[in-house]
Amino acid sequence: MSEAPGRPKASSAPPEGRSEATWGPSGRVIFIGAGPGAADLITLRGARRLAAAEVVLFDALTDPALREFAPSARWINVGKRGYCDSTGQQTINALLVKHASEGKLVVRLKGGDPSVFGRLEEELDALAEAGIECEVVPGVTAAIAAAAATQRPLTRRGNGRSVSLTTAMTRTGALHASRSADTEVFYMAGKQLAALSRRLVEAGWPTNTAVSVVSRAGWPDQLHSDHSVATLPRASMLHAGRPTVVTVGAGAAALSAVRKAADTSVTQVETLNP
Amino acid sequence: MSEAPGRPKASSAPPEGRSEATWGPSGRVIFIGAGPGAADLITLRGARRLAAAEVVLFDALTDPALREFAPSARWINVGKRGYCDSTGQQTINALLVKHASEGKLVVRLKGGDPSVFGRLEEELDALAEAGIECEVVPGVTAAIAAAAATQRPLTRRGNGRSVSLTTAMTRTGALHASRSADTEVFYMAGKQLAALSRRLVEAGWPTNTAVSVVSRAGWPDQLHSDHSVATLPRASMLHAGRPTVVTVGAGAAALSAVRKAADTSVTQVETLNP
Repeated sequence: MSEAPGRPKASSAPPEGRSEATWGPSGRVIFIGAGPGAADLITLRGARRLAAAEVVLFDALTDPALREFAPSARWINVGKRGYCDSTGQQTINALLVKHASEGKLVVRLKGGDPSVFGRLEEELDALAEAGIECEVVPGVTAAIAAAAATQRPLTRRGNGRSVSLTTAMTRTGALHASRSADTEVFYMAGKQLAALSRRLVEAGWPTNTAVSVVSRAGWPDQLHSDHSVATLPRASMLHAGRPTVVTVGAGAAALSAVRKAADTSVTQVETLNP
Repeated sequence: MSEAPGRPKASSAPPEGRSEATWGPSGRVIFIGAGPGAADLITLRGARRLAAAEVVLFDALTDPALREFAPSARWINVGKRGYCDSTGQQTINALLVKHASEGKLVVRLKGGDPSVFGRLEEELDALAEAGIECEVVPGVTAAIAAAAATQRPLTRRGNGRSVSLTTAMTRTGALHASRSADTEVFYMAGKQLAALSRRLVEAGWPTNTAVSVVSRAGWPDQLHSDHSVATLPRASMLHAGRPTVVTVGAGAAALSAVRKAADTSVTQVETLNP
């Protein structure tokens, strides 16, 4: 680890207000967090940078409607699902370097936020080695979109002072769960909810702990179901094949007054989602 | 805890594509995450909802430039700093209920994301008790904005599989630190960096663990400094009086290739920020 304690660093991003033209003629890559899916959950900064793109490398989980922001750009689908496809990652790195080296303004459009389970470090490293300038525009990560969609804040004053974002899948494909924060949010666990339920019990979560499962958060067809650690496996069928976020603990529980209102509307909910 | 295991819930937010007019004549409250500060880090959805507001209750940490999105709305500053002002919270709750009860479209504009250290639960509860419909539009939380600004991903494949967002301050004002995730991000600890350094050591973090301190992330005047757990207190002066995020562990370390480039530019950085 190389450190320069206390020394402020200049960011490699251009200051706001500095015109794009002053970046010079060489190519560069802008990583943009597209948010959890729905096109209107991208930031204004992300939308503006995207509109200037000449080449866009995009993930499977980004909304096709985002194409309208940069209709004349070349759009390249580098979508991969899951967290384990390293061959695909090498190809993506090479494509980023290739197009930027040709002097293009390249946008790397990632679902959610690039800094959270986005393998951003591998792409930044490849571009740094090639001497290519980068900027990162943050986005709304799935855990936060799920919390907004369900109106279940991830932190609660008094009993929810920390929230952990984690992927239940290890590099080897094994499933891991912990009990390290008041609220734990698991990414990419949708296919293994039964196993996750067991791991949560092993990690010390009481079986009646609240678990909230949300798939396609922020989209018109988002689905939300409530469970406990014990009943979590029942969520598998409902959310099958959809990007899913599992929230466990303090941040998964319905708010007291909201919960009262929800109790009276179960019939309606069943009619809506038979 | 009241549960309906496995039953999908309808969201209280209107489906996208359904016109605003179908909400009916009664008032409602839309919570919007404004992002970490700079106006262009709000989402498109947030900007559009804000443009329709009749009344806006906003925090101290939101960019005054956001006013341009809703110039004819009534803007009310309910800014409070920190996490402990419960008298202020009661007043905010009452203002939300009052204006929505008068049939107004009220926007509650919060810095960062409403679901992360935003005391959203207290405001939602107050509105649910008053029978007022709410929507929550997510935003970019400060930890993620800091990671983007410094190009230091919060997760790293291999050695950074979990990230914890936490406030170092407890309800009683005592400082707390843990070592529960590969990367820990502390909110609202800017005033107590020396104490945080000691708590991190007590929690078991090696003194040479990387610590990245960012204030005003996403703004043109953002500052970033690198430290270790041991040298963290030196950051106090630099970031004094500014909203500050402290990242500890895997996600705080510079990327290998990026780090090499940074090593050669220390002089330039010192000139920029003497």
